[in-house]
Amino acid sequence: MITASVIGAAGYLGGELLRLLIGHPQVTVGQAISTRFPGKRVDGVHPNLRAQTDLTFSSIDDLADCDVLLLATPHRATMDLLPTVMSRAQQVIDLSGDFRLPDTTAYERHYGVTHTAPDLLGRFVPGCPELFRDELAMADLISVPGCMATAAILALAPLAGLIGPDVQIDARTGSSGSGATAGDSNLHAERSGAMRVFAPVRHRHEAEVARLTGLNVRMTATGVEAVRGVQVVCHATASLDELDEKALRRAYREHYAKEPFVRIVAHRRGSHRLPDPRILLGSNYCDVGFAADGDRITAIAALDNLMKGGSGAAVQCLNIRRGLPETMGLEFPGLHPL
Amino acid sequence: MITASVIGAAGYLGGELLRLLIGHPQVTVGQAISTRFPGKRVDGVHPNLRAQTDLTFSSIDDLADCDVLLLATPHRATMDLLPTVMSRAQQVIDLSGDFRLPDTTAYERHYGVTHTAPDLLGRFVPGCPELFRDELAMADLISVPGCMATAAILALAPLAGLIGPDVQIDARTGSSGSGATAGDSNLHAERSGAMRVFAPVRHRHEAEVARLTGLNVRMTATGVEAVRGVQVVCHATASLDELDEKALRRAYREHYAKEPFVRIVAHRRGSHRLPDPRILLGSNYCDVGFAADGDRITAIAALDNLMKGGSGAAVQCLNIRRGLPETMGLEFPGLHPL
Amino acid sequence: MITASVIGAAGYLGGELLRLLIGHPQVTVGQAISTRFPGKRVDGVHPNLRAQTDLTFSSIDDLADCDVLLLATPHRATMDLLPTVMSRAQQVIDLSGDFRLPDTTAYERHYGVTHTAPDLLGRFVPGCPELFRDELAMADLISVPGCMATAAILALAPLAGLIGPDVQIDARTGSSGSGATAGDSNLHAERSGAMRVFAPVRHRHEAEVARLTGLNVRMTATGVEAVRGVQVVCHATASLDELDEKALRRAYREHYAKEPFVRIVAHRRGSHRLPDPRILLGSNYCDVGFAADGDRITAIAALDNLMKGGSGAAVQCLNIRRGLPETMGLEFPGLHPL
Amino acid sequence: MITASVIGAAGYLGGELLRLLIGHPQVTVGQAISTRFPGKRVDGVHPNLRAQTDLTFSSIDDLADCDVLLLATPHRATMDLLPTVMSRAQQVIDLSGDFRLPDTTAYERHYGVTHTAPDLLGRFVPGCPELFRDELAMADLISVPGCMATAAILALAPLAGLIGPDVQIDARTGSSGSGATAGDSNLHAERSGAMRVFAPVRHRHEAEVARLTGLNVRMTATGVEAVRGVQVVCHATASLDELDEKALRRAYREHYAKEPFVRIVAHRRGSHRLPDPRILLGSNYCDVGFAADGDRITAIAALDNLMKGGSGAAVQCLNIRRGLPETMGLEFPGLHPL
Repeated sequence: MITASVIGAAGYLGGELLRLLIGHPQVTVGQAISTRFPGKRVDGVHPNLRAQTDLTFSSIDDLADCDVLLLATPHRATMDLLPTVMSRAQQVIDLSGDFRLPDTTAYERHYGVTHTAPDLLGRFVPGCPELFRDELAMADLISVPGCMATAAILALAPLAGLIGPDVQIDARTGSSGSGATAGDSNLHAERSGAMRVFAPVRHRHEAEVARLTGLNVRMTATGVEAVRGVQVVCHATASLDELDEKALRRAYREHYAKEPFVRIVAHRRGSHRLPDPRILLGSNYCDVGFAADGDRITAIAALDNLMKGGSGAAVQCLNIRRGLPETMGLEFPGLHPL
Repeated sequence: MITASVIGAAGYLGGELLRLLIGHPQVTVGQAISTRFPGKRVDGVHPNLRAQTDLTFSSIDDLADCDVLLLATPHRATMDLLPTVMSRAQQVIDLSGDFRLPDTTAYERHYGVTHTAPDLLGRFVPGCPELFRDELAMADLISVPGCMATAAILALAPLAGLIGPDVQIDARTGSSGSGATAGDSNLHAERSGAMRVFAPVRHRHEAEVARLTGLNVRMTATGVEAVRGVQVVCHATASLDELDEKALRRAYREHYAKEPFVRIVAHRRGSHRLPDPRILLGSNYCDVGFAADGDRITAIAALDNLMKGGSGAAVQCLNIRRGLPETMGLEFPGLHPL
Repeated sequence: MITASVIGAAGYLGGELLRLLIGHPQVTVGQAISTRFPGKRVDGVHPNLRAQTDLTFSSIDDLADCDVLLLATPHRATMDLLPTVMSRAQQVIDLSGDFRLPDTTAYERHYGVTHTAPDLLGRFVPGCPELFRDELAMADLISVPGCMATAAILALAPLAGLIGPDVQIDARTGSSGSGATAGDSNLHAERSGAMRVFAPVRHRHEAEVARLTGLNVRMTATGVEAVRGVQVVCHATASLDELDEKALRRAYREHYAKEPFVRIVAHRRGSHRLPDPRILLGSNYCDVGFAADGDRITAIAALDNLMKGGSGAAVQCLNIRRGLPETMGLEFPGLHPL
Repeated sequence: MITASVIGAAGYLGGELLRLLIGHPQVTVGQAISTRFPGKRVDGVHPNLRAQTDLTFSSIDDLADCDVLLLATPHRATMDLLPTVMSRAQQVIDLSGDFRLPDTTAYERHYGVTHTAPDLLGRFVPGCPELFRDELAMADLISVPGCMATAAILALAPLAGLIGPDVQIDARTGSSGSGATAGDSNLHAERSGAMRVFAPVRHRHEAEVARLTGLNVRMTATGVEAVRGVQVVCHATASLDELDEKALRRAYREHYAKEPFVRIVAHRRGSHRLPDPRILLGSNYCDVGFAADGDRITAIAALDNLMKGGSGAAVQCLNIRRGLPETMGLEFPGLHPL
């Protein structure tokens, strides 16, 4: 059995990590670290874990050694914290934004502060198995990409060489991405039913997508009525004359033929003909789809931001790194209707 | 023109008061008082008022005289505040819970603190025109009942003399009742889709309903997925042998024959056969309906908690007190679908 | 391996049965029978089953023998169908309402038609393991109770002997209970945000609850904004002087000490202090809770109507009948937030 | 008083027309024509109109003369119907898609059928006062643009001459746009919480936007969780070197300085800093906003599809054509929170 501990365990990504790790046949949860609730029962904060665990939250001061340490702590705080705890585990998997970008210049442009652990920046392998499976099998520092970034990267990856460099991404997200302490503007009465364009230009995940796809990416992001769920609609231009939907389908199929968590969803008709996060909640799938209109290509992806967009991807990486079957503990297929 | 000022103008009831008063043909808004946002534009907090007003919030320290003063301030704070400001206006209309109950004992039992203005308690006329229209026409101190209390009172009033004294009320409410500063448990991600029984017994509005109907009332309250809207389902026992639905209909029709804001909704079939707050949002209607099964009577009412359950009722009272047509400024009928 | 086939497999309960049976380590799905979609891929109707199965729907005319036959067909149609197919399997588990009541009189009063298979009526064991586990272990005809009935029965069962006979139940339900062919009044634009009292008196599940609890039950039912999820709030009167919350807790704990799918949720504070179906979606739990105010008792239960209120209960019964671990294939704990 | 009749009065746009016309101080509703419900009370279909009207639906066979005839009938049916009824009124305002495009070729490409009234196609003035106010003042045939088209046109109009010709539009819409007879794929259980990309390329409103803006427009459309409400996010490229947000603000302000129903919403911060349809429901506003990132321009608009995107625009056109104040009957400002 592998002992895994979670820092930031009282947040939404932290709770999802605990749910997955508690249900994982090869993992024991070591500690659930929380600054806000040390000593409190875990199921008092994550009520879906009632009867699943008797764990209580621990203070960061009591952090013990473990095999794998997962950080679901806030951006900016993580770069200070991670160097102080990384020696406690053989592997560290970070879900924050602090170690996703390769250099301090990019970080400071997108996060607005100076990076405090610049030496570590280049040492993390992106927690995206579809692009970095081999590296992840040996990585001791893993940084899981942002939820919208993962969706966009998986939507666009099969198009490498088939489209021009400029891509416009339109991302939509539920409210859980704002976290469990999101403030008054995320009160139910304010956020309910909203179509809130919170990033009309320059969403921070642009940099991650650009880095991992090599494309010139612009990203707009809108909060829509949902708790979980991310969808990206990517607009690109074909660089080839002959890029019809048949060719697109072939490209996607070849690219993802062996991927356990990427499904191609691109049907001619039906209310589920393209990727929709609703049927993915709780699952680790990223569904990808596409359409063409002359030289204009639309690529679409959907996922659960707390799963494939965060905690599920982290567990997938843990499985890869520890030599376990990649889908272990991640088999839940999602619900319909929901 | 009547000058009306609002204290607590940055909250949800305050914003609804401003919307109604700005659109009222016989009222000018004097001041919009806010502790949190003095100096800030009103439409920065209430975005639906863009292009309706250039008002900015004022500090309570700058409160000026006006004709009618409306308080949409929190419970407990209001009993301290009201005595200090009531001399600034000819009439005071309070939307808080602090002056709804007739004596300090009842208040302390339901609000858990000692009342700090006991001398005023008995001087307020309940802001329920259907029961107190004549008194309201002369009242200088008006206390608007709670949103669920108003719904229950209007559902039950026609049954006086027809039912036994024990009534069980099951109330459901949206999230706006928790206010604009409701805290983490009301974050969208937490509150969305909830069926949250926040008062399994002893909801505080019991005392108001009991007082105004003379019944022995028990009230359970549940937060359901909605921002605005209250519905009550009241369970009673007929005290007469012959209380079928025909007799019930006659009782409701006679009772509400002349009421401008109470509609009887009790049809045999159809998805809108009984009161549903959804079609009432923004309107000042309280819809009431009923059904019978032997000696068991179900009485149902629905309203918009920020309108007939609060700010709309307050403006209706203002109209009555100032001799204006009772429906003035309250004509919006509601939307369907929504 | 057990071969299980599903009739009515294109509906919501049918889809949930398929999801559970496909993921069940000891079951193979024989056939998925659908009148509407014979020959069509199952995952074309249930998109969450993409990559889980390559099954196509079969016609009822092609029904083959199997070990366990599960019927998720409509009320009224089932009583005609079941006698014609019951010989094809060793066990039949019916999820419709047609075999829940013990005699034709009760059926005709609540379903408005004459029962066409009266000889079978008394032969079904109710699919409620908490009350009939021993009988289910030997039953070849099992009838799963209605979703609201199961919730109410589990909320009330521990109170046997502690409360008077009259109980008022207030049930709330999501839209999936109306099925996949629910008609225009269940269009999203009509049903969204509704508080639709569709049964102000005499909800049909009254008879089931009365039968299995021995109480004199009245049930009101309201559709609220949700797709999945049922909650019941039951109002009863203590028959003992000393029935405070401590005594209630003891009664519930003793009653459900060994139940794998009933959790007691009755905390003093917190937004999840009482049962809420939101955290149960996809899980097989029924959470039960309670509160007391003098001699008035409020008992509350919540479940996912497609799981513990239908398909999950059916699989639990299958496990019991076939001697498998009762929780097999039903381990998903639910999501939070969602 | 002007007599106005509505054909297609039982649909959502029809119901909204009735609500507005009943509340309009200078209009009397002549007839509410419905094929589905002749003889039935209007408020049986539109429950928000209870106590507003005693009208019953009339059959098209009984259509009488009136001053203004409004058609809220389906695409394809309207082109057959309109020529047979246009002589009954001085003005005809069509809300369908059948007379929005200037020629039969464009129509057939986007609607997939041959146009049956090609002679009329060029005779309609688009019901977009911001572009055609003078023509509308004299028009006897008016065709209201599609809801997403209106939003996109108003978002883009101020950018004429400032951006390059290629524009990508990402539109999001609620479920009411699918109408009151939308079919099983729009059932609440199916549509709830969806992010359904129903037009990944080539949404039909492309042609309208292209026609009225002169741009080369591509439009993607997604159904999101909402009943009412449309939002468009338009991606364009500046054709000038110096198109920063200050210049954009100046362009929008100048363009819409005198428009009663267009508000510029482009703030630096806050949860309502950009257009969101939620606060517009029931109102006739179209809010427009913008942002720039280098040479990339994002233009955003939001409206209520049944109001400014349909029935509200129709009444605005009626006001203009009949010489009434343009805002008459359209003063409702919208609700917050909702």
